[in-house]
Amino acid sequence: MTTPWNQRYALRIQGMGSSIIRELLKLTENPEIISFAGGLPAPEVFPVEAFRAAADRVLRQHGRQALQYSTTEGYTPLREWIADYMSKYGIEAGVDNILITSGSQQALDLIGRILINPGDCILTERPTYLGALQAWKAYQAAYTSVPIDDDGLQVDKLEEALCAGPKFMYVLPNFQNPGGVTLPVARRKTLLEIADRYGVPIVEDDPYGELRYEGEHLPPLVVMDAKILNSRSSQSNGNGSGFMRGNVIYTSTFSKTLAPGLRLAWIVAPTEVLQRCVMAKQGMDLHTSSFVQMMATEVLYQEGFYMEHVRTIRRVYGERRQLMLAALERCFPPGTHWTRPQGGLFLWVTLPKPLNTIELMPKAIANKVAYVPGTAFFPDGSGHNTFRLNFSNATPEQIEAGIERLGKVLYEELEKHAAPVLA
Amino acid sequence: MTTPWNQRYALRIQGMGSSIIRELLKLTENPEIISFAGGLPAPEVFPVEAFRAAADRVLRQHGRQALQYSTTEGYTPLREWIADYMSKYGIEAGVDNILITSGSQQALDLIGRILINPGDCILTERPTYLGALQAWKAYQAAYTSVPIDDDGLQVDKLEEALCAGPKFMYVLPNFQNPGGVTLPVARRKTLLEIADRYGVPIVEDDPYGELRYEGEHLPPLVVMDAKILNSRSSQSNGNGSGFMRGNVIYTSTFSKTLAPGLRLAWIVAPTEVLQRCVMAKQGMDLHTSSFVQMMATEVLYQEGFYMEHVRTIRRVYGERRQLMLAALERCFPPGTHWTRPQGGLFLWVTLPKPLNTIELMPKAIANKVAYVPGTAFFPDGSGHNTFRLNFSNATPEQIEAGIERLGKVLYEELEKHAAPVLA
Repeated sequence: MTTPWNQRYALRIQGMGSSIIRELLKLTENPEIISFAGGLPAPEVFPVEAFRAAADRVLRQHGRQALQYSTTEGYTPLREWIADYMSKYGIEAGVDNILITSGSQQALDLIGRILINPGDCILTERPTYLGALQAWKAYQAAYTSVPIDDDGLQVDKLEEALCAGPKFMYVLPNFQNPGGVTLPVARRKTLLEIADRYGVPIVEDDPYGELRYEGEHLPPLVVMDAKILNSRSSQSNGNGSGFMRGNVIYTSTFSKTLAPGLRLAWIVAPTEVLQRCVMAKQGMDLHTSSFVQMMATEVLYQEGFYMEHVRTIRRVYGERRQLMLAALERCFPPGTHWTRPQGGLFLWVTLPKPLNTIELMPKAIANKVAYVPGTAFFPDGSGHNTFRLNFSNATPEQIEAGIERLGKVLYEELEKHAAPVLA
Repeated sequence: MTTPWNQRYALRIQGMGSSIIRELLKLTENPEIISFAGGLPAPEVFPVEAFRAAADRVLRQHGRQALQYSTTEGYTPLREWIADYMSKYGIEAGVDNILITSGSQQALDLIGRILINPGDCILTERPTYLGALQAWKAYQAAYTSVPIDDDGLQVDKLEEALCAGPKFMYVLPNFQNPGGVTLPVARRKTLLEIADRYGVPIVEDDPYGELRYEGEHLPPLVVMDAKILNSRSSQSNGNGSGFMRGNVIYTSTFSKTLAPGLRLAWIVAPTEVLQRCVMAKQGMDLHTSSFVQMMATEVLYQEGFYMEHVRTIRRVYGERRQLMLAALERCFPPGTHWTRPQGGLFLWVTLPKPLNTIELMPKAIANKVAYVPGTAFFPDGSGHNTFRLNFSNATPEQIEAGIERLGKVLYEELEKHAAPVLA
């Protein structure tokens, strides 16, 4: 009869969000359920054959190097490719500003490790990416948050929230997870000016930036921030670029454009920040798999491959988004609201106030359809009448059927709530 | 003229050890230098062809699964293989006791994350593995340490060190890094009894356990601990196995037996500990690369492959260890002492007290040979007259030439120190 560990020894780290949500999400693994809960890419668009050929070439030509330890910073040709590619979007980063990470999740963990002391406050959008809250919980972060609307972060409410003295601001400007909303240029400008004025750095998380299905690409915060710096320094000495000297740490990933099973992402930051990230990563996992980095590099350097592949994803996900929006229009009851994402993987539904999406979840599951209850994405635990839908993973047929099922559940539920008033 | 980040914003995380050592180690990258500094396996023994065939099969047969997100716990067939394999060494762990990690370094980081609160004290061997100190620095751990001798941890000094009230004890019982020493069964027993009596858990790090070149395999701490529990409970109710209910968290890796470039290792722990590790890993990197896990699994399930491959490694490294020991005998001056490892990758040299191996390093590098100054491995910064030598990576010719060069440097240095006395 031994006492369990957690009673003998103090253990840290709890799961994120309510354990009820976690238990409910386990039920969605049943293959009969059409799940809009996960954030999974469509596996049918993975470039499997390109990876197979690349794995073969890497192991034939550089097998020993691919299987050996490598540097924490990452495989140099991969960092060079990223630097070159990002320059197309105006991000003028050198190789020394780029660190390869084991997925974006590790980028967030690294940022937490170098910036957060216990009790430090982080400013986020409300709702915000669950994985960031999960990563930073380990560093005992506190939160202050600013609500989003259909145009993203409500920047006019930013200065009030800054009174909490946050260590940094965490923002997903493009097709936000979970909101699906995009920050317009004017708001980006205001955000950057406020960050500059108050001396608060910004962590710009951009996992979906390339997956735009309508409208024009908007400049990343890190680019606009450099321009602000440049315009200022041209008045004084006109010397050098503002890049990698401003307020923004940028992160992106190959999980949505190549494949998440690789676990490949990157951080772009001023060299002094990046060096700390490198030291922190040394303590975390030494380096990201040499073989995976070399295989991805082999694929990326194929003339024209990447752009063509991203175009395919845009087409497939763009169609699914349209289908889901049309189905929502058709099937959801009046009084429900949803965002109309210009890109990315998610859209966000807000129900009339009295409805609670955690309480609704068992009923949805009984009707063989699933979502993520929105409260999981709120650092303050609010948002009980919201949920997130993913439109990248389910097939067109599943999207039609799933939204229909969900609409039926919502109609029934609203009727139930309306009944007492009518009585 | 922008102020650098580290002057504007407080950044955490410093490098481990003195920056002098880091700068010196950078110099050893010169290919003319014979480096015994790294802990690299010999790339010529990597099973490149087996991996090439496995990558091909996995991507042909399960490409979409291999490139998709997967569970944090790890690929079930891989965990099953590990459970089955460890049972050969007496470790009766179920799949639910096993978590796949991105290298042993992540296992250490995870352990730190679930166990260490800022200021908590950890008990280590002195010297100990640098990477553990590096991982736990992020959690603001303090240290107390017990010296090792040629038989490992001096267990008779353990109770005194326990007065510091450590959160756990960190021990590498087999072919310790950096000492190369192995803890005999009697000392293992004493260690476990003390851990049990004082209620202090043990983290057993066993990266080299299978790489034994002489003597008999010794039971892991986790096995002996279960036996102690069993003998006790058989007196009360004779019920169940003591496995995964005792004081030991065990960790091992494929980095030394398959290839480090994969970043594949595992933790074995009681389920309630493992569940916390899973939650912590979710915040760190979501999961280890699905593709890499499936590729390694494909290789491991090949009839007879793994045992045969481990035998090859034992033969190659065993020969190199013999060569290095013989060269040390021949080339090193009297008054120097070194350990005689029965396995693993490293041996440990102690010079006469007045010598300082950091000061000696530039001279060694000028003579085109390198080691790691021992002080890097001491949580208290002592050990100035010690250094670590790796014998797995250099070729037999390099081992002979390198030890000869190093011996010459040591003779010259000792003469210099002796001179004033003779004058």
